[in-house]
Amino acid sequence: MTDRIAYLGPRGTFCEAALLTMPAYQSAEHLPSVSVQAAIDAVRADEADAALIPIENSVEGSVSVTLDELANGKRLVIVDEVALPVRFAVMARRGTTLADVTRLASHPHALAQVRRWVDATLPGITVIPSLSTAGAAEALLQEPAPWDAAVAPRLAADRYDLDVLADNIGDTEEATTRFVLVRKPGDLPAPTGADKTTLSLFMRLDQPGALMAILNEFAVRGVNLTRIESRPTRKALGDYFFSVDVEGHVADSRVAEALMGLHRVCLDVRFLGSYPRHDGKQPVLREGVTDVDFADAQQWLDKLKGSGQ
Amino acid sequence: MTDRIAYLGPRGTFCEAALLTMPAYQSAEHLPSVSVQAAIDAVRADEADAALIPIENSVEGSVSVTLDELANGKRLVIVDEVALPVRFAVMARRGTTLADVTRLASHPHALAQVRRWVDATLPGITVIPSLSTAGAAEALLQEPAPWDAAVAPRLAADRYDLDVLADNIGDTEEATTRFVLVRKPGDLPAPTGADKTTLSLFMRLDQPGALMAILNEFAVRGVNLTRIESRPTRKALGDYFFSVDVEGHVADSRVAEALMGLHRVCLDVRFLGSYPRHDGKQPVLREGVTDVDFADAQQWLDKLKGSGQ
Amino acid sequence: MTDRIAYLGPRGTFCEAALLTMPAYQSAEHLPSVSVQAAIDAVRADEADAALIPIENSVEGSVSVTLDELANGKRLVIVDEVALPVRFAVMARRGTTLADVTRLASHPHALAQVRRWVDATLPGITVIPSLSTAGAAEALLQEPAPWDAAVAPRLAADRYDLDVLADNIGDTEEATTRFVLVRKPGDLPAPTGADKTTLSLFMRLDQPGALMAILNEFAVRGVNLTRIESRPTRKALGDYFFSVDVEGHVADSRVAEALMGLHRVCLDVRFLGSYPRHDGKQPVLREGVTDVDFADAQQWLDKLKGSGQ
Amino acid sequence: MTDRIAYLGPRGTFCEAALLTMPAYQSAEHLPSVSVQAAIDAVRADEADAALIPIENSVEGSVSVTLDELANGKRLVIVDEVALPVRFAVMARRGTTLADVTRLASHPHALAQVRRWVDATLPGITVIPSLSTAGAAEALLQEPAPWDAAVAPRLAADRYDLDVLADNIGDTEEATTRFVLVRKPGDLPAPTGADKTTLSLFMRLDQPGALMAILNEFAVRGVNLTRIESRPTRKALGDYFFSVDVEGHVADSRVAEALMGLHRVCLDVRFLGSYPRHDGKQPVLREGVTDVDFADAQQWLDKLKGSGQ
Repeated sequence: MTDRIAYLGPRGTFCEAALLTMPAYQSAEHLPSVSVQAAIDAVRADEADAALIPIENSVEGSVSVTLDELANGKRLVIVDEVALPVRFAVMARRGTTLADVTRLASHPHALAQVRRWVDATLPGITVIPSLSTAGAAEALLQEPAPWDAAVAPRLAADRYDLDVLADNIGDTEEATTRFVLVRKPGDLPAPTGADKTTLSLFMRLDQPGALMAILNEFAVRGVNLTRIESRPTRKALGDYFFSVDVEGHVADSRVAEALMGLHRVCLDVRFLGSYPRHDGKQPVLREGVTDVDFADAQQWLDKLKGSGQ
Repeated sequence: MTDRIAYLGPRGTFCEAALLTMPAYQSAEHLPSVSVQAAIDAVRADEADAALIPIENSVEGSVSVTLDELANGKRLVIVDEVALPVRFAVMARRGTTLADVTRLASHPHALAQVRRWVDATLPGITVIPSLSTAGAAEALLQEPAPWDAAVAPRLAADRYDLDVLADNIGDTEEATTRFVLVRKPGDLPAPTGADKTTLSLFMRLDQPGALMAILNEFAVRGVNLTRIESRPTRKALGDYFFSVDVEGHVADSRVAEALMGLHRVCLDVRFLGSYPRHDGKQPVLREGVTDVDFADAQQWLDKLKGSGQ
Repeated sequence: MTDRIAYLGPRGTFCEAALLTMPAYQSAEHLPSVSVQAAIDAVRADEADAALIPIENSVEGSVSVTLDELANGKRLVIVDEVALPVRFAVMARRGTTLADVTRLASHPHALAQVRRWVDATLPGITVIPSLSTAGAAEALLQEPAPWDAAVAPRLAADRYDLDVLADNIGDTEEATTRFVLVRKPGDLPAPTGADKTTLSLFMRLDQPGALMAILNEFAVRGVNLTRIESRPTRKALGDYFFSVDVEGHVADSRVAEALMGLHRVCLDVRFLGSYPRHDGKQPVLREGVTDVDFADAQQWLDKLKGSGQ
Repeated sequence: MTDRIAYLGPRGTFCEAALLTMPAYQSAEHLPSVSVQAAIDAVRADEADAALIPIENSVEGSVSVTLDELANGKRLVIVDEVALPVRFAVMARRGTTLADVTRLASHPHALAQVRRWVDATLPGITVIPSLSTAGAAEALLQEPAPWDAAVAPRLAADRYDLDVLADNIGDTEEATTRFVLVRKPGDLPAPTGADKTTLSLFMRLDQPGALMAILNEFAVRGVNLTRIESRPTRKALGDYFFSVDVEGHVADSRVAEALMGLHRVCLDVRFLGSYPRHDGKQPVLREGVTDVDFADAQQWLDKLKGSGQ
């Protein structure tokens, strides 16, 4: 049914590579967008049914533009997520060898992660920062090409018909990027027992204890956080909202009660979806917070209120 | 309908005086009991429809036997409360004057509270501890009387046909005793906006943070405590339950949710009733915890869960 | 050096029995006092060097008068504690047999704890409440004796030259009473690694979160509570102080820092002593709160402040 | 004494403009660095005495590279901060008019903030993203220039001898960037009463309550947070450290005690300096947390420990 999926382009990005790993969307129409914002706008404008965008990287941290775009404007919800190892390849036009390369381009983050390989293999080379890894690969097709080679996802070589001169050249242990699939609000994905819920929480007051109060709403219902970010509300230095991921689905009683608590305590709570975790990890719950425990407590209370028995 | 009310006797006690201040029960049959336990047993055995018993004194603190009797055995609920100023009178058989008094009896607590008056007015007198104030008055009718005068509630003079030799002889500012009316579980008193709820909370574990966890269940829903007592569970030194009064009625959403939270966290929660406060004081609620706030949050959640809109 | 020890009399009480179990004080002069208050007054007035008084019973709970007397008036400190199993005997004048007994006296608490034995062994007997167990035994020496037998500590039989008609007649598992030895402030007992510290904490405000704030001062330094009681300040219903025991000695860094935190947060903190636990139980500490951890943190801070290195 | 100050270049950046507002460093040697990392490396390598780098922007949020560089590698400390309003100008080579401009370049963030002005004033223009605002201005000096005009700080026009075609063209209310001056650890700036302290906090465990525990260390000593960011530790998704700013100086007792508490609770605490706030705002302290309160508590404790008096 979902047949038009926007993603952070151009073709050949890690984001497209991530999309290709999702069986449900492989036969959909894939629409490269020039930016995260453009991909999200496409969904809001009904030009796409969903968008796959990066939200977190194990080296660089959260993707601020994603958090901010989801926190503002017409509300979208996350319905799926996927995590992809970040592996870099060096690629050039057909027939080029490493010895031919004097100018190497990529996004500064990618360049930082392959620095050691570059210093060892291509000493003295000119390194050129670009605004995108796949974009650096795509630019090799220009006449004249602005550089000789690009550090980019291997998929970019397929997309732009380039030769891979070296693969897997990252310096350190593998980085991972997490991508989320967003669409307009509708039926929620069914709970699987290993779900995550994403929220944007706007404070009522910039008070010292506000964050503790928020964390307490989760803690008292045994809901664990897996990510928390403070982000400016774009008003003044020191005016924040919090972007959080928690374990569990809004269909889980403990998550539902925590959300209602936050709704009462926060200036605004934006619900950004409940969806299956990419790693299938089930939460370890403390005593007293399963759905059965909540149902038992409700039944006990109803009996008390009914007749005091 | 309730026509047999047991109270802590004998006739002439502060408890009977308190009962006489409750319009709804003035025409009921009043049954003096020899102890708090006996009054409670009478209700449990259907020999009385309700019992009025002391629960707290501003000088002596909680009445342990009341807390313990309510926490154990067949469950009863509090349906009303009343607070009575504690004022002592000296009384003796008809015709006696203060100058005739050489032996003065009362309960040690009462003697402690009138010590200054006694030292000033009756220096050198023999003071005799007894097990009850009204009992000390009643004993004056024995032949021979074991003492010449008693320190007791003024009501005792009426009941035993005694002369009041001095009234209002307490040394300090007025003490107050709070009494509760208990009966078998049934329909709860309707919420009035100025209610109190009484609970016995048994811990799941004797862990350091257990009390904080309990207090947090109240705090996170904005429920204020007005009394908390730890009581031994009668097993070993250091094994406690907590007896608490909180502001609000179980029909209030914030109290209901807190109770369900406690039900999940505690080994056992015994609900001992929601009833109008004797002082009519309404709670000062923090933002976000009124019934309207809870209903709004529920509606918001239902909408999210329904279609994610 | 300490040679005059007051205790809760009369002779033959559990309190005297407890004193006899303390080797350091067996050869001291033992002074029976008519009440807890009298024993404490004797120390304050230099008529005794120390006083042994009951503070907690596994069945009846805290001894209110002890908590209140220590919380008010000239400050005393606890320097030792002892716990004694509470075992009751029936005793009568020499030559009396159980068959001769028609009137049996004791303190109501004791009578409650031997009720089953009495019902089974002495059915139909007249039971007379008295103000003290040992006092009921002592009264057997009066002419005429007000009753035939007393339920009292076995020691009372020795003290008053009585026959023990039955021993160990308590209905249930053994109750325990804890006694504390108090004296005027002076050198503190050396820390043993298994110590306890007793405090009276007066709130600055009768605010809902006050108790949580206090508990948090302990929790954040990993100090465990072993007892907490709320007691009225004798002013109005709802005006409380808290009496607490915590694990550890004021010489332990975590206890010291918690005490200073309480001093800043409370209206008043009364330090009632650090002393060896009667059970020798050492605290289980969470990570980061040993004296070594505190010293490391101080050293780290000093270095930072010295030169920022 | 400090005479070589590195800053985020090239010449003409907001960072240089911020440096020019700091009287103490105006006559120093100013060294433009190609990146935040390069500026920090210069200090670590003793090629500069200090570095001024951006740390937070009211629109874009924290500058991740700054947080990460300060959290890793040889420790540096912040000794001063400055906040600068972000105002954009359009500039071009001498003699150019707005009518001549067909290609406009700047950093994507800047382009986003002037979009409305550009759409209204230069409709249909080609907009080119560059890696730096001042860099886009500097590039205008190339032959041929890659674009006709740049959106950059006004200072860049001075530095590169350009004409300002329009000034103050930001769409919305003013954004602000905060810069910090870092150097090697040494004597700390003296406390002023309006100070800030910056820390990187590494968790001992990725446990649900870890963040609450950290916040509690501050809360219990009345230390307010002004900023908190979670940042990945560059190991795996979900492994974070927290970067925080708090009100107060490590010379303030409440901050010192909180730091020691964190040192005991965290896997690692990196102290990144105590320095005067750019806005001179003094903290509002709750009762009991001034230096006098801490000194009083210490004195009280010393007396207790000394002789128990």
